[in-house]
Amino acid sequence: MEFSERILGVDTSELRGVLSLIKGGDTISFAGGVPSKELFPLDELREILLEVSGMHDAFQYTSSMGVEELRKELLGYLKERHGINAELGEIMITHGSQQGIDIIGKALVNPGDVIVVEAPTYFVALNTLQIYEPHFIQMELEETGLKTEELESLLRKGEKVKLVYTMPTFQNPSGITMNEEKRKHLIELAEEFDFIVVEDNAYGDLRYEGKRVKAIKHFDESGRVIYLGTFSKIFVPGFRLAWLVASKDLMEKLEVGKMTADVCSNTFGQYVAWKFMERNLLEKHIKRLIDFYKPKRDAMLEALEEFMPENVSWTEPEGGMFIWATVKNGADTKLLLKEAIRRKVAYVPGTVFYALEGGKNQMRLNFTFESIERIREGIKRLAELLS
Amino acid sequence: MEFSERILGVDTSELRGVLSLIKGGDTISFAGGVPSKELFPLDELREILLEVSGMHDAFQYTSSMGVEELRKELLGYLKERHGINAELGEIMITHGSQQGIDIIGKALVNPGDVIVVEAPTYFVALNTLQIYEPHFIQMELEETGLKTEELESLLRKGEKVKLVYTMPTFQNPSGITMNEEKRKHLIELAEEFDFIVVEDNAYGDLRYEGKRVKAIKHFDESGRVIYLGTFSKIFVPGFRLAWLVASKDLMEKLEVGKMTADVCSNTFGQYVAWKFMERNLLEKHIKRLIDFYKPKRDAMLEALEEFMPENVSWTEPEGGMFIWATVKNGADTKLLLKEAIRRKVAYVPGTVFYALEGGKNQMRLNFTFESIERIREGIKRLAELLS
Repeated sequence: MEFSERILGVDTSELRGVLSLIKGGDTISFAGGVPSKELFPLDELREILLEVSGMHDAFQYTSSMGVEELRKELLGYLKERHGINAELGEIMITHGSQQGIDIIGKALVNPGDVIVVEAPTYFVALNTLQIYEPHFIQMELEETGLKTEELESLLRKGEKVKLVYTMPTFQNPSGITMNEEKRKHLIELAEEFDFIVVEDNAYGDLRYEGKRVKAIKHFDESGRVIYLGTFSKIFVPGFRLAWLVASKDLMEKLEVGKMTADVCSNTFGQYVAWKFMERNLLEKHIKRLIDFYKPKRDAMLEALEEFMPENVSWTEPEGGMFIWATVKNGADTKLLLKEAIRRKVAYVPGTVFYALEGGKNQMRLNFTFESIERIREGIKRLAELLS
Repeated sequence: MEFSERILGVDTSELRGVLSLIKGGDTISFAGGVPSKELFPLDELREILLEVSGMHDAFQYTSSMGVEELRKELLGYLKERHGINAELGEIMITHGSQQGIDIIGKALVNPGDVIVVEAPTYFVALNTLQIYEPHFIQMELEETGLKTEELESLLRKGEKVKLVYTMPTFQNPSGITMNEEKRKHLIELAEEFDFIVVEDNAYGDLRYEGKRVKAIKHFDESGRVIYLGTFSKIFVPGFRLAWLVASKDLMEKLEVGKMTADVCSNTFGQYVAWKFMERNLLEKHIKRLIDFYKPKRDAMLEALEEFMPENVSWTEPEGGMFIWATVKNGADTKLLLKEAIRRKVAYVPGTVFYALEGGKNQMRLNFTFESIERIREGIKRLAELLS
């Protein structure tokens, strides 16, 4: 029995290896990226579950595009928070942003098509897109985001690009946010060179300081941006609900991708999310998350400043869940992880986040999961290890 | 902007055309295949929702394989009802059987690989598999199921088959059930010629008469059957939950297919389904469905007998949701549908259910949706049209 070429192309061994390392009871874990479950709004959810439990349609199939009432609520949220003007026919509910990425790959990518990704980038997106056998080109990040100048020179040299996948706000893993100038530049390039920008905004609502930025999609007048948002980080992950915003031209085929993937997203979760938004609880909950996460970010930044040796640098994100650290003297963070685990502290080594190569001396540090005390202690242990 | 070849290969226009025709308020619809929502067990669900509303983990991510407690419940159900012995590592929860089919295509099918499908077959499975650009071969059904003798002669001629997709029990659309002899024959062929059988058993629990049959998977000793079951027809569709059973060798890559599709199935629905099974409500609910659907099947068979002209024949399924009718004198059921709609009765024309060609003079009649009175009236109108 033979597997498909496409599935054999996906290498999850490194990832699984890392994940198996970090399952330790008393280990201080900076490795995860999962919301704290003690923050789930159970009391508010209980009321909503009771309300929805009486609604027959919540247990039935729904349309592939998703429950209309939820999509309408999301249109308001998108306009208000991210400057996105979209119509009902331009928003589809998916099973996580992950599925959004899968559907985009399915509907747009032929084997060999060029996908430009950030270096580093969200590794699960890489695995998902790999299924469609693209040719990845990775492009460095700087403090202000993706080096769009480099992208431009690549395009001017004649490279035909199909997709650019970017997480422009509080990027996973770097925490970096792309500035407005670059967002506009990226749109200009997409128009001139006819490619699609996939804007994954999973963390954009988790801002602890600084001014809100407008989504890349805000600047998109020719329908070249596909925007992804998710409830996983700002509500709960357990319903696996997210949304994809695209022009109607694109949506026609993206919807076929969804229909053939799983008919429709789970109706029940969509009803609960709709009612949660209708009661204005999403805004309230985002504020609660920010109040909870901000001191943790501050604690990690302070501990890094206090304990880390001079050869270590790190990003200072205004939001999101991650800090990205670089060890300057060529340390191997994958090798070091074993010793870190012995000292009961874990992180994700940098190499995982690169489509091609890089990240050997880098690591992702999550600051939302552990308590402030354990964050301090964990960073101290890491600092000792890196000294 | 160009779409992928694979998405351009999926033609949903015929299907959409049909679906748009059958949305009429007072039209008697034999076109659907959706469970009646008045049968959803809302009272039992309310209690369970309250219980689950207090469980933090129900709102968190879960593993790609699915919630362990639910999978354990399903192992018992599979053994008891379908004669399937499987271990925990051999069952994965998916977002509908649809997603199971998608993952199978993703992990196993290279462009040009041969997939044998029944003629007629479940058309959404055709669309989903089409994404992976296979070469479809269709194989006729007889009263006792797929013509495995024909499959054998195809294989002996040297045709290399990758997958056989079958719905062996109360097939959609024909209602036909494959007998035990053919089930064993299919397994023998799979072993000799090294192909995978995809057994889609969406309707197998809805038996109104006759003796239970064992799943093809029951006879599978070499791990060549991937078995699909679903909650959509025996519980509720609104959580989009189904299961896939496969040998561990296959599961390793199928799990990669799931991880890259949407990380994991919605945890909340899995908790609800687990609690529903733990309370022994699934068995009770299946009995309730059978009590509700059986008189409707009987009513449709009686009305067909009473009203249909001699040139029309139909299947007499022992379970499921559909009867398959054939008009002998070469009527075109797609053309006739327009007139049927005018007379306020709808069905799905046969051509939709064929991978290649066929079905021009056939139609699928759903008997679970309409009331007994309307079933009689609808069949009477159809009979007048066909006379």
